[in-house]
This record gives sequence, structure tokens and C-alpha cells, in this order.
Amino acid sequence: MSISYNPHISIDCVVFGFDYKELKVLLVEREVWDKKKNKLIKKDLKLPGSLIRKREELDHAASRVLQEFTGLKNIYLKQFDVFSNPKRIHNAADIQWLHEHTGIEIEHIISVAYYSLVKLDEASPYENSLKTKAHWVNINNIPKMIFDHNEILDKALVALRNELRTKPVGFELLPKKFTIRQLQNLYEVILGINLDNRNFRKKLLKQKYIIPLEEKEQLVNHKPATLYYYDQKLYNKINEGNQFFSI
Amino acid sequence: MSISYNPHISIDCVVFGFDYKELKVLLVEREVWDKKKNKLIKKDLKLPGSLIRKREELDHAASRVLQEFTGLKNIYLKQFDVFSNPKRIHNAADIQWLHEHTGIEIEHIISVAYYSLVKLDEASPYENSLKTKAHWVNINNIPKMIFDHNEILDKALVALRNELRTKPVGFELLPKKFTIRQLQNLYEVILGINLDNRNFRKKLLKQKYIIPLEEKEQLVNHKPATLYYYDQKLYNKINEGNQFFSI
Repeated sequence: MSISYNPHISIDCVVFGFDYKELKVLLVEREVWDKKKNKLIKKDLKLPGSLIRKREELDHAASRVLQEFTGLKNIYLKQFDVFSNPKRIHNAADIQWLHEHTGIEIEHIISVAYYSLVKLDEASPYENSLKTKAHWVNINNIPKMIFDHNEILDKALVALRNELRTKPVGFELLPKKFTIRQLQNLYEVILGINLDNRNFRKKLLKQKYIIPLEEKEQLVNHKPATLYYYDQKLYNKINEGNQFFSI
Repeated sequence: MSISYNPHISIDCVVFGFDYKELKVLLVEREVWDKKKNKLIKKDLKLPGSLIRKREELDHAASRVLQEFTGLKNIYLKQFDVFSNPKRIHNAADIQWLHEHTGIEIEHIISVAYYSLVKLDEASPYENSLKTKAHWVNINNIPKMIFDHNEILDKALVALRNELRTKPVGFELLPKKFTIRQLQNLYEVILGINLDNRNFRKKLLKQKYIIPLEEKEQLVNHKPATLYYYDQKLYNKINEGNQFFSI
């Protein structure tokens, strides 16, 4: 048996950023040049990604790419799917661009996809360290990207929403002391739905690990709301008991 | 920028089988031959796997391999991790075997790993359709396998145990009507621990979706125990309400 076929391997990263109001995605520019005329033909957007390098581990490639575009190390990335459809790169212009960009004929790229979620508040290093060709784009304004990058993004969003619905990841994206309005806003923005205020408040206040403080919010031009904090230890304790048989 | 490096891609499958008593794993034989002397040098075990074929999707490759060794189609496989360490294949004899087996020089194989769990009762087609070189091996008697296959199996077992602890997958491995003893045995075998009988029974009977029947077990040479069934719809209903905010 002789098998001489090997596709190329890449990684692609879906980095979600939340700034308390909007959910954004980190996209990078791709430029297609007419080399003979030295003229820019078109500029479009893609997910940050790369073919892996010689003897490179996938997680390493993902970190390398993120560092390249954000200037930052140690962004937590979670591998969530592998895209291996041989037709995922079929557009003639894209194949041509790949050829020019890599210097080799590429027929089939299998891409291992990662996602992560970062806080984009004023103190965030993510907001300020982006390289010139990287942008935060609102989730509702994502253009048609190259290859199957829209599909990869859609699947990452499904994975993120599933995590948000079933795990307390949302609190990592809020200030330590938060209002119920802020928490509801986070759920509405990431899940892409409107929630009934009264129901949300009612369900929320049933959770014992969301604890009201004596403090209220400050410097707002409406009636200040109560601040809450999330008790991770209490959540873990309650959750242990809820886990199926808590064996 | 010129990138001409591409590792090979394989899939490996960890198929767990449960026969109500033991947890087993489907392993296949690898034979290493001295071609000049036409003599078998050694025989060892590995996970069922394969390099992917030309323009083949990963899920397709996984199904193809399982069908090859079990004769069966439509085994549900779940992708759970990707193994990309460039040192995962480092043994000189293994590299030599790969070369002979594939006809090409292979330096780095990235393997996408799948797992699944099947019932091995008397009616099971899995038990009877195995090809000659495939075996069900008890989880406690797994030998040293080739490459990093022991590590892949270990990680699959962690994923399986995590699923068993948090989701009601265990019921798919039991008869429709089961005793608490059978259910406890399933948890003990798969989790690899001993559970306190009284505590297990107590926790179990608190779960409203495990419903006692009027019937008792038959043809046993001890006091017949009550039979139960698992109400999936009720579980879903209760679980929806438990999910974080049940939004």
C-alpha cells in the first residue's frame, strides 16, 4: 500500500472581544496584488491563521499567529473543530492567491480551528496593541470572508453560545462588581436575542452564587442599580451537587 | 514567504465496548516483518487508524477505518482531540515500519482522534463481526502500544468519564429495564472506582427521571431486584431548568 497524499495543515483563530456593549471578532486583512502591474487588486478580510511550520505543534501555531496580529502572548485559545472538506478552498482567485503567498501548489488544507473570548474594556491590552492590518469587527457586520471562514466563525459562535448557556463564563467578561442590566446585556449581545427583563432578573436572583452587595453603581444618570458579585466557589459547590449523580 | 512543509494527517479511533461487566477497547494488530528473510519480527497492538486518503474528509476516514476492522457502518464517532507533537513518532523501528507500510518517508503525522462507546451484549453485532486482526481488550490489560496510542487512549478515557459524569450517556449502555446494581456496575467499571452501595442508591433514587417499575428481575439466583427505566423526556425537561439560567 502506498499513500503519498498529504494535505496541508493550518490553524485558524476566532477571537471574540466583548466591550460591555458589542461582541466583536478579530479579523485581518488579505491583500491581493497584481504582481506584474504592482497594483492592489482587492483587499478583503479573513480570520487570523497560518499554515503550520516545520515540526510545529498546533497550539504553538495558534499562539504564534495571535501574537503576530495582536502583539500579545498567552491568549487562551480553545480548539473546537477541524475543517477538512476538500472543497473548502475552491475559488480560483483564492487558490491563485495561496499559490503566490506560499510559493507552492496547494490543493487541500485541513484547518484546526480555535476560539477565545477576551474583555475589551478601556484597560484592555487587546484594544491597543493590534497590528495595523488587524481589526475588531462587530459580529453583526461580518463581511463575506475568504475560504470557508464565515462557516468557521459561525461554528465558533455556536460553541461560544453553548458555553455561555451552560457554564458561568460570562462573569469573566464583566467587572468584578456588576449590575443585573450589565449581565443581561452580555447574554443578549452574545446570544443575539432579547430577553424579558423581569424573567431574567427573577431567574438570576434564584442563583445563590450571584450575591448582592451593599453598594450601588456610581456616576450614572439614572437611578443607581445594586451591584452584585459572582461567587465562584459557591458555584462550584452547588454545581458539583447538580452534576448527574455527583459521584 | 515560502512554506513547503506539510505533515501527514491521520485519524485514530478509540472504540470503547461495554458488555455489562467489563470496559473494553477495540485494538488491532500491527505486524513488523523482516522482508528479506520473509519472517515476522514482532506483532504488537495499536488503535484502528489510517492516514487520510486523497481529498478525504476526516469523518469519512474514521468511518472507513472502523468499517474495515469491524465490518460495520454507522458507528457514531466523536472527535475529541488532535495530537500534533512532532515527537509523537520517534522510535526508529516505528519510523522504519511506517516507511515500509506507506512507501514514503514520514516525518510528522498529525492525528485527529475520535472516540465512541458501544454496547457489547449478546445481540451486539460488534462482538461478532470483527475482522481477524481486531480484538476487544479489557481496559485494565492494555499493553504498550505503538506511537503515542496509549496517550490517545488515556485522553479518550478522560473524555468518556467526563461525559459519563455530566450526561446521561450510561443508559444507552444498559438494557431498557435495568437494576440499580447494573447501573452502579457501569459507573464503577467506566470510572474505575468503587462506589458506596448505600450512597449510590440514595443519590440515584433522588433522580426523578429514573423510574421504578412494578417488575423485578427474573432468572437470578439471588433475591430479585426491582427494575427501573430511564425517562429521557423527563431528564431533558429537568435539565433544561438546571442549565445555568435556562434562558
